[in-house]
Amino acid sequence: MPEHTATSRLRLFGLCFFLQILNILLFAVFVRYSPESSPGLCPSRLNCSRRNPDSGFQQPRFQGVHIQVLLSLGLLVAFLSRYGPGSAATSILITAFAIQWALLIQGIFHFFLNGKIYVGAQSMVSADFCTAAVLISTGAVLGRVNPVQLLLLALLEVTMCSLNEYILLSLMGVRDSGGSLTIHTFGAYFGLVVSRLLYQPHKDKKKREEQQDMGQQGDVFAVAGTVFLWIFWPSFTSTTTFHDNAENWAVLNTYFSLVASTVATFILSPVLYEESTPRMVQIQDATLAGMAVMGMAGEMLVTPFGALIAGFLVGLISPLGFRFFTPVLHSRLKIQDTCGVHNIHGLPGILGALLGTLLTLLATADTYGDRLELLFPLVAQGSWSVTYQALMQLCALLLTLLLAALGGCITGCILKTKMLRGSPDAQSVENTVLCEVAEEECEPRASSKELGTSTLV
Amino acid sequence: MPEHTATSRLRLFGLCFFLQILNILLFAVFVRYSPESSPGLCPSRLNCSRRNPDSGFQQPRFQGVHIQVLLSLGLLVAFLSRYGPGSAATSILITAFAIQWALLIQGIFHFFLNGKIYVGAQSMVSADFCTAAVLISTGAVLGRVNPVQLLLLALLEVTMCSLNEYILLSLMGVRDSGGSLTIHTFGAYFGLVVSRLLYQPHKDKKKREEQQDMGQQGDVFAVAGTVFLWIFWPSFTSTTTFHDNAENWAVLNTYFSLVASTVATFILSPVLYEESTPRMVQIQDATLAGMAVMGMAGEMLVTPFGALIAGFLVGLISPLGFRFFTPVLHSRLKIQDTCGVHNIHGLPGILGALLGTLLTLLATADTYGDRLELLFPLVAQGSWSVTYQALMQLCALLLTLLLAALGGCITGCILKTKMLRGSPDAQSVENTVLCEVAEEECEPRASSKELGTSTLV
Amino acid sequence: MPEHTATSRLRLFGLCFFLQILNILLFAVFVRYSPESSPGLCPSRLNCSRRNPDSGFQQPRFQGVHIQVLLSLGLLVAFLSRYGPGSAATSILITAFAIQWALLIQGIFHFFLNGKIYVGAQSMVSADFCTAAVLISTGAVLGRVNPVQLLLLALLEVTMCSLNEYILLSLMGVRDSGGSLTIHTFGAYFGLVVSRLLYQPHKDKKKREEQQDMGQQGDVFAVAGTVFLWIFWPSFTSTTTFHDNAENWAVLNTYFSLVASTVATFILSPVLYEESTPRMVQIQDATLAGMAVMGMAGEMLVTPFGALIAGFLVGLISPLGFRFFTPVLHSRLKIQDTCGVHNIHGLPGILGALLGTLLTLLATADTYGDRLELLFPLVAQGSWSVTYQALMQLCALLLTLLLAALGGCITGCILKTKMLRGSPDAQSVENTVLCEVAEEECEPRASSKELGTSTLV
Repeated sequence: MPEHTATSRLRLFGLCFFLQILNILLFAVFVRYSPESSPGLCPSRLNCSRRNPDSGFQQPRFQGVHIQVLLSLGLLVAFLSRYGPGSAATSILITAFAIQWALLIQGIFHFFLNGKIYVGAQSMVSADFCTAAVLISTGAVLGRVNPVQLLLLALLEVTMCSLNEYILLSLMGVRDSGGSLTIHTFGAYFGLVVSRLLYQPHKDKKKREEQQDMGQQGDVFAVAGTVFLWIFWPSFTSTTTFHDNAENWAVLNTYFSLVASTVATFILSPVLYEESTPRMVQIQDATLAGMAVMGMAGEMLVTPFGALIAGFLVGLISPLGFRFFTPVLHSRLKIQDTCGVHNIHGLPGILGALLGTLLTLLATADTYGDRLELLFPLVAQGSWSVTYQALMQLCALLLTLLLAALGGCITGCILKTKMLRGSPDAQSVENTVLCEVAEEECEPRASSKELGTSTLV
Repeated sequence: MPEHTATSRLRLFGLCFFLQILNILLFAVFVRYSPESSPGLCPSRLNCSRRNPDSGFQQPRFQGVHIQVLLSLGLLVAFLSRYGPGSAATSILITAFAIQWALLIQGIFHFFLNGKIYVGAQSMVSADFCTAAVLISTGAVLGRVNPVQLLLLALLEVTMCSLNEYILLSLMGVRDSGGSLTIHTFGAYFGLVVSRLLYQPHKDKKKREEQQDMGQQGDVFAVAGTVFLWIFWPSFTSTTTFHDNAENWAVLNTYFSLVASTVATFILSPVLYEESTPRMVQIQDATLAGMAVMGMAGEMLVTPFGALIAGFLVGLISPLGFRFFTPVLHSRLKIQDTCGVHNIHGLPGILGALLGTLLTLLATADTYGDRLELLFPLVAQGSWSVTYQALMQLCALLLTLLLAALGGCITGCILKTKMLRGSPDAQSVENTVLCEVAEEECEPRASSKELGTSTLV
Repeated sequence: MPEHTATSRLRLFGLCFFLQILNILLFAVFVRYSPESSPGLCPSRLNCSRRNPDSGFQQPRFQGVHIQVLLSLGLLVAFLSRYGPGSAATSILITAFAIQWALLIQGIFHFFLNGKIYVGAQSMVSADFCTAAVLISTGAVLGRVNPVQLLLLALLEVTMCSLNEYILLSLMGVRDSGGSLTIHTFGAYFGLVVSRLLYQPHKDKKKREEQQDMGQQGDVFAVAGTVFLWIFWPSFTSTTTFHDNAENWAVLNTYFSLVASTVATFILSPVLYEESTPRMVQIQDATLAGMAVMGMAGEMLVTPFGALIAGFLVGLISPLGFRFFTPVLHSRLKIQDTCGVHNIHGLPGILGALLGTLLTLLATADTYGDRLELLFPLVAQGSWSVTYQALMQLCALLLTLLLAALGGCITGCILKTKMLRGSPDAQSVENTVLCEVAEEECEPRASSKELGTSTLV
């Protein structure tokens, strides 16, 4: 084993070193700061507000962007309640690498001109969206992969995710400001397919049960994650919406959705499990699901009760998924879903996309007013009918699922075949052992242990 | 017991379900997004900057509001150091419900037009203020009520709190931007009266002692809560003040107050308790008290040293209250104050209101300049004298105390008589047991255990 | 011992009381709110946008300042992973006192007019920068000083730090917006010199080993600290840069630097220690180092890959410093560096200053455009050559080291001679004991214990 560990350590060392040097070289050759971010440097030959049809996208709100470049961190905090601090180190490595890589790949798609990639605050936000998708996928496979595999997964997923985003937003003219499709759906199904390909029948079972219940410390993280999400996420979903006033709807709709989703968890918890109040991790899941469903529809909903209903339904569906669907996934489809990303991100993302499609179909100049121009410029200009736009939104869902499955397949095969399969992260094993110790002290929480296992078998 | 628990679970299930469906229906019938939040949709018949005398109130700063809609979360984090993560779930349920309900009730008072409630970012902020008052009241009764009772308490308190706020701010023309009266004083005395009516002599004593000392984990939460409050609260108190520049004073005064209050805690702690440095929970209490006292006076104070003195005094009074007044409350008045809200919110709120009254009396056009128009429009217009305005501020204090006591009485009676008294939250009991285990490991902290009990008997 | 503790308690009581009353009196006599923060109150005799050559500095962005007045809190959170919540109380006392004192001292240097100090949001930010330097110094001596000594250290360091900042920024015209010199270098070397003078060979050894490894709880704090720094720090470094667009570079450069620094830690960790992934505390150190190096250079770097390289190098140097330089510091120079501030703040600060000097030397109107006017107004006006400006930046480094050493000497001597040496903070000892208990439970983490000691001997 120590021999083995030494090899795995050296492999991680080598890969990190290689990738970081590669990033530095690519940045040195290609990446420059956007002249837009420095007044008076914008040469006339470079039209400083070009490319995207929606001009607002080109004027990132510089002030707010400080805080908003942390979507992925929000997820990271949220996931800690399941992963534990041992795996936090790996997650941060993934984040640090994926942000650089996403800047490069997305830059090629969106900000490429005269052989240079011009980055600015907007690029950081886009890169962060992509990193969030990677972290979601990580949630499906964590505990069964080592850091080297995770780095390769990040490398491949960022590429696929950027491609998907480029096709959807730039080529197809789809609106998905909060990433119901590009982040949540793509990340979840990509991760699930990778998880399927890495399936190991005997080895993982015991470990996963331990991993999924961190006892009291998990609760502390879950509280922190929930509060963090309540505070910051509504801003994220509105990052890429544009005018100061229009933005409001996305923020408020997201709030309404997460509030209703939280109450829904309290309704189902006493029925599904033998507990009077749900555990904090479940509340956090409800928060995430309530936000995922508002990703696309957030800026389109014109009535608050729509957001309440959507959040309420998704708050019911997500725990039901954990109770009834995750075991089926595991036993029939042989997909292990460590953190339940299918229920938290996959299903709510799909529902959000369907809701967005429905709302697009109902969009009229009457209800939207000036907003129509901003949301669906092609519809407002008369080039497209709302039906066509809605069809596009629907196609985008199917395309996202297709690309996620395809990308997951490729990634899973590479991770499997390339002799990369070492023992998973030594530290996460340690961590698991710690959890066991911690749990034995916490006899009164036995019910939570049962809960942990009941969702699996 | 399992029979009993099953009933209590079903009751919670039923109540949550009923209330959420009710909310959705009421939202569907009454609530629409404010046309103000969507330019070009404001019909001419709806004057888009109407109602409140202070016009600034109608122009919520949309950008900043993302972060500011979390006053109640700040409190939630702060309270975790005493409640523990077990009760966090219940607190989040209360928050999620109270926000929706407050939007409805406050909407009826403030944003009602042509049979519809028009909500926007401003409504979210107001609803959050109200939710904060509910969480403060929760602090007085926690550990002795079950989630069903807490939901009913939230239902009733939000109604009373909105009524109080409407009378004070809209009818009486009182200035209370940071909620010294409407949040802190109202929440604290409402909770104390409910606590009095739910008094149970034998049963609670032991449990409370355990509840009030969470050992090491409580410290972790207290550190998080304190940092959170230092970062975000000064922004809250200035949410409802208006012009970008005027806002400054409220922020800076709040900073000065909390800084002085923190130092004061270090002065009293070695004298009152046999410890060289205070525990983190006490520092957090000082932070909260220092902020409560600046609720009304924050925007009125024209000199920094005034804020320092106010914070310093309240930082001395709050620990003295814990040491000498809380035991009296308990033994003589039979009021159990689980988290000491009387010392943290009640007294500082009253002192803040008195200070605000004094400052109103001293307000002149010389010292305030353009600000007078913004702070006291009726005084600036010459309709009212400063004496009359000060009298109003003072009457507002008395009215708040009256309404809080009345509301608390009604709520307490309902919670008591309606056969709602089940066993308190099963999870919080579990949590208590966990604390005991944790404490036995921590023998060196025995002094803190003594501290916990010495404040009680 | 109890006798002794009582004396130490009374001494803390007396000093806190005296200092707070002194602060209140000085504030009452000298400090007023800046008329700039209240429109219409600015008398004609007081030129409301005066003093500093860079006019932008005089227009603090009031909106963003709420969040940015927490630089010191960021450090505080970061340090908790090493100090533990027991010492958090003392750190908060230091912060509360240092902010007030810094407002006074810096006010005398920067905002003094007609016998009054005019404070505003900008003063709070400056005071917070100064407090950050104090907290860095605290990191070098913590565990070996009592709260009384720390208060005196804060008193003296704030004075020296403000003097240094005044000479650098106002007299010498040096650019150091993120505080590579004024915060990181000054704070680190001041603390190290004090640590040298307080050296006690026998007593401290055992305690420090325990102090430096907090086991699992430390990890929780390190995760929180890292996330906090990733979110908020990039905004800090750009607080004192000016135009909305120019600001971008500092933010983005800081992001790039910390991302590369984080990856670098993952490269070195498997080589230096026998672990596959670094511990969270090491990642947090990398984050801090990556930010310290961008303090001065952040707003000057015109290419993203420069920030990547700088971050990457400093991410390699910082762990190497911990592994090889800290033991030398301890054994040869008899400097105990409790939290390794030399590696996290000292070295990166110096490297950042050298990088800034180099970049100044390379500054041309071509690459900077309008920015040159903002960054180096004297160069843009033609009064100075870039060589002269670069020389100034270099002199500023030497002067900072000199003043830090001088100030540290004076402070160390006073702390040593004045019969202030009591037993260190009783609570931190308690805390240490708690850690020991916690560690014995965590046998699987034995490797981390080894790590803790291996960095020492």
